[in-house]
Amino acid sequence: MIRKGGWKKPTAGLAPGYAQANLVVLPQRYAFDFLLFCQRNPKPCPLLEVLEPGRAATTFLSSGADIRTDLPLYNIYRKGKLEETVPGIKGLWQEDFITFLIGCSYSFEEALIRAGIPVRHIEEGKNVPMYITDIPCNAAGIFGGTLVVTMRPMPPERVVPAVRITSRYTSVHGGPVHIGNPAAIGIKNIGRPDFGEAVTIKQGEVPLFWACGVTPQVAVMKAKPDVCITHAPGHMFISDVLNEELANQ
Amino acid sequence: MIRKGGWKKPTAGLAPGYAQANLVVLPQRYAFDFLLFCQRNPKPCPLLEVLEPGRAATTFLSSGADIRTDLPLYNIYRKGKLEETVPGIKGLWQEDFITFLIGCSYSFEEALIRAGIPVRHIEEGKNVPMYITDIPCNAAGIFGGTLVVTMRPMPPERVVPAVRITSRYTSVHGGPVHIGNPAAIGIKNIGRPDFGEAVTIKQGEVPLFWACGVTPQVAVMKAKPDVCITHAPGHMFISDVLNEELANQ
Repeated sequence: MIRKGGWKKPTAGLAPGYAQANLVVLPQRYAFDFLLFCQRNPKPCPLLEVLEPGRAATTFLSSGADIRTDLPLYNIYRKGKLEETVPGIKGLWQEDFITFLIGCSYSFEEALIRAGIPVRHIEEGKNVPMYITDIPCNAAGIFGGTLVVTMRPMPPERVVPAVRITSRYTSVHGGPVHIGNPAAIGIKNIGRPDFGEAVTIKQGEVPLFWACGVTPQVAVMKAKPDVCITHAPGHMFISDVLNEELANQ
Repeated sequence: MIRKGGWKKPTAGLAPGYAQANLVVLPQRYAFDFLLFCQRNPKPCPLLEVLEPGRAATTFLSSGADIRTDLPLYNIYRKGKLEETVPGIKGLWQEDFITFLIGCSYSFEEALIRAGIPVRHIEEGKNVPMYITDIPCNAAGIFGGTLVVTMRPMPPERVVPAVRITSRYTSVHGGPVHIGNPAAIGIKNIGRPDFGEAVTIKQGEVPLFWACGVTPQVAVMKAKPDVCITHAPGHMFISDVLNEELANQ
């Protein structure tokens, strides 16, 4: 349906049970550095699949999907600046493009909800709040910067179960990187996220912070490669792999 | 002590509690394919650290170790053939060499023993038995081949705990890839391992098979790069990272 242009909205809540993925496409000359950046920063950049140069068909995440047509919306960056947002990238495709598909926190959110732990931004029908922290990433070649995190507030009695459950999903960001005081990781105003939307934090609730797949996008924007294609925020690649298959092995 | 030439023997049992690593050094032209091979085969090739071109000093696994001098013994392969075994590689170093350090099952063996689960080859003072299976690896560029596994026999009541404990260590091969019948994964004679030494399997015991760090070495030998340097079997890099730090996050 997405391939035929019949769905151009965000993919949150679609195909329950199946993993969704972040997309980053870069010319081959940047690919080793970016692959190394992901290897060195597995919590924000858990690689689910990397395709051969010029290849647009996935193998692990689905058989035969075409990443040039099978996401609802793409962002095209040139020299680090967002140039346009388009529904397909066949016309822009280059034989030296390398595709990276990166795990998404939708997978562990489903596990939380299944365990009876509500997720605030889903309850409130919002995009997850994201914050740029002062936690440095491990640089690799031209790619560096600081960690971007998502935040989910929990009542105190749900903090430990939330850590336990999300820690089972290393390949989709795993357990939190920080619990509690936002200032300790360089977040000045919890009410004003850098991306996404603010959510309600009720009296007595504790904010939990997880590494976020926007981290590599920020790293790419800072590195200013000639061209880079990503999914538009929230408009992910939907795979044929079950979230449960991504639990730790 | 190793740097000064004071220890030229295998490293099993040295520096208890600290992780040891497999070494693979390749010229940069092969590095993207090899990094991709590791990404696609995380169970046999769990990358702990990858160094920049020409760089011999580790950052994550220790501060300031020199991988050219800090392993007891190295194997030099040229076009897939073992050419010599040497105590240091400073004289052979090239500015385009990229170093890969890969997790080692010593880390999860320690966790098994701490949990009261004996490991047979350690009890018998032998090298772990390793077998070439018919399970295909996911190829990447010139690198491919089949999975190499280690085998540890367990009495039936220890099979589940052994799975549970080793599954906590994704970055050092994680849980087993197979339990039981060796023929099901292409092993013809459990008494004749392809590498290492045979161990006693007692009446009623079940063989458990884990992905092995020799898999990438076999892939490299088959790919026949101009040059490749690895640790000599059993003569690993000893890190400053605790095994417990490598448990799933």
